Amino acid sequence: MTNLQNLKGFRDFLPQQARKRQYVIGILKSVFESYGFEPLETPSLEYEEILTGKYGDEGEKLMYKFEDLGKRKVALRYDQTVPLARVVSQYQNELPFPFKRYQIQNVWRAENTQRGRFREFLQCDIDTVGSKSITADAEIIAIVSKVFAKLKFLNYKISLNDRKIFKDIPTKAIIIIDKLKKIGLKAVREELSINGMDPEIINKIMDSEKSDNLKQIIESACNLGVKNENITFDPTLARGLDYYTELIIEVEIIGYDAGSVGGGGRYDNLIGIFVNRQIPAVGFAFGFDRVMEAMEQLNLFPAELSMTKVLVTVFSPDLLNKSSEISSLLRISNINTEIYLDENISIEKQLKYADKKKIPFVIIMGPEELEKHVVQLKDMRTRSQEEININDLVNLLK
Amino acid sequence: MTNLQNLKGFRDFLPQQARKRQYVIGILKSVFESYGFEPLETPSLEYEEILTGKYGDEGEKLMYKFEDLGKRKVALRYDQTVPLARVVSQYQNELPFPFKRYQIQNVWRAENTQRGRFREFLQCDIDTVGSKSITADAEIIAIVSKVFAKLKFLNYKISLNDRKIFKDIPTKAIIIIDKLKKIGLKAVREELSINGMDPEIINKIMDSEKSDNLKQIIESACNLGVKNENITFDPTLARGLDYYTELIIEVEIIGYDAGSVGGGGRYDNLIGIFVNRQIPAVGFAFGFDRVMEAMEQLNLFPAELSMTKVLVTVFSPDLLNKSSEISSLLRISNINTEIYLDENISIEKQLKYADKKKIPFVIIMGPEELEKHVVQLKDMRTRSQEEININDLVNLLK
Repeated sequence: MTNLQNLKGFRDFLPQQARKRQYVIGILKSVFESYGFEPLETPSLEYEEILTGKYGDEGEKLMYKFEDLGKRKVALRYDQTVPLARVVSQYQNELPFPFKRYQIQNVWRAENTQRGRFREFLQCDIDTVGSKSITADAEIIAIVSKVFAKLKFLNYKISLNDRKIFKDIPTKAIIIIDKLKKIGLKAVREELSINGMDPEIINKIMDSEKSDNLKQIIESACNLGVKNENITFDPTLARGLDYYTELIIEVEIIGYDAGSVGGGGRYDNLIGIFVNRQIPAVGFAFGFDRVMEAMEQLNLFPAELSMTKVLVTVFSPDLLNKSSEISSLLRISNINTEIYLDENISIEKQLKYADKKKIPFVIIMGPEELEKHVVQLKDMRTRSQEEININDLVNLLK
Repeated sequence: MTNLQNLKGFRDFLPQQARKRQYVIGILKSVFESYGFEPLETPSLEYEEILTGKYGDEGEKLMYKFEDLGKRKVALRYDQTVPLARVVSQYQNELPFPFKRYQIQNVWRAENTQRGRFREFLQCDIDTVGSKSITADAEIIAIVSKVFAKLKFLNYKISLNDRKIFKDIPTKAIIIIDKLKKIGLKAVREELSINGMDPEIINKIMDSEKSDNLKQIIESACNLGVKNENITFDPTLARGLDYYTELIIEVEIIGYDAGSVGGGGRYDNLIGIFVNRQIPAVGFAFGFDRVMEAMEQLNLFPAELSMTKVLVTVFSPDLLNKSSEISSLLRISNINTEIYLDENISIEKQLKYADKKKIPFVIIMGPEELEKHVVQLKDMRTRSQEEININDLVNLLK
């Protein structure tokens, strides 16, 4: 018999979980679109040569590559930035520039799942391609801030830095300084020393002032509605090294300690790789799984994410048509309504079904109710039940 | 230099196309949810043994299979029914039954792309698992009808049949009869003859009456609001052979001739494959790409699918802050608003950008306007322009 199991790092999302995912995706999209970002979809599989050489040695190792039936070397999408670079190059005459797109698709990485990582996971990216404007940077920060506010996080911190702050610091030192949050100041100083570098570099960095560029970006973000209290200047923030050219962004949720819930910044040297010229870009990637986990931990999902508002029970087979009629009536009024599908099931069992699906209201209608043109409306949260005239039902449930 | 191209049968969806896809997906979901169907997501990759032996010889050939880095034999999702069967078996103690789920995810098949087929395409399925009730069958028909009506198709035909109609007919004859629409009555009769069968079988089938089961399903569907004029009884409809056990459904759009835009029915012997017992099920799969094509051909997409309602132009760098303020004001009122991202660009070029993104309204605001607390509001479809007081702007655009 077949062994029923998922591949390590690959997940099923049953309705309750899938609904929560859709809720978060819905908010992300609505904020992205409120700023004029538009959806882009790229294929799951690309020619391997499009992706190779772009993600460093580690990326290369984690990529899902294989030969297809036509002996083409192909690879599963590893991120959404290289596909964006391909799209920008391939359709440069069609696309509007600046090109503001969001992309919410799965990526695949053969990660070590023991570290709480997944091998298939959703990436949620926004990027503005083709603008060097400070407003473009500020807009990304404004969107990030709006998303976390709309998800009801009360306490989040957007750390900002300018990559240019490191211009006189040796690369090796920056890599060590980048570990500050993880290992602490003392350990950073020690590691700098051990590697033959001046441990005072870290203090010099920590004492740095905001660059003019960063000051302007922050001013512009505040003009777009970002609150000063949600922004911190963090001169030690590097987020990897080679990727970002100026602005660097990282977001943390206070009260959620598993790490940052997203990062981004300006990266002017990546989108042009396929055309060998500089194409400026600024963007941000939301860590979807971490956002989901933080929402769960902080109890931020609305109590009622059930998509069905009412279950219309079927009292007996001869009353099925009446139940059908009521369900159609409610649906026409845009109330998501389920009719119980089997006809010879006790009302008790039908109520259990509503409980299991977390449906908030149940309608019960027997011969007595029918005669009086009423129904029993049961509120499943309070278990209270009320007799309602059918004519009043729609207004009451709306 | 890297060759910038997509794999055969794999597509990019640029914003204009992606928006149209989202529009159709949005309607599908809203109808599914109005009947209490809930979302399910399953992984893109499964153990190969879960999928093999389920799709016949042709399916086996078209499946994307490979060995992952851990030497596991894996395969990309080929449809959403076998994963549903796995989910139903694996989580049978957690799920509510009847289990009504929808699933809208990509599947991968190494199809011959010359026949207008794709290798990565979206499947949109609804299925009710665990109910033999006629209401379950009727509900699927009602949903199908509602979806095409909501997509604004004026003329669509839902063909229905009962698989049991073929109970005395040899399998080989059914396969020939199933070709009726493609090759015509004369050719079917000839092919029956050539294969040593009575050509009169086709006439006998064509003269059949509706089964009692089908009559009841149709009555129940009409109770749920399906219009009789959209339903046809087609006794020759087989839609493949082994899959369906009773109800068979197929939908055609009048005026779109590339084939049916979806099919389904009752299939009581498939969902239980992993647990070796019968688990009844009824469902329907929308042919997403064909629906998109039919909508395009019949011009059914709303004229304004742009997600951005207004572009706020930037008159000059010193007025950028004012433009930012106006854009924030509109966004707070839930009007999707874009601000032009570069500061030293002619208004003419900014208008071209709005045209390219099909943004319907543009706001222009120079020093004169600022002084009078007004803006110029340009309707991009009529090219007419009006002076509007800033206080009236939100109400006017809502």
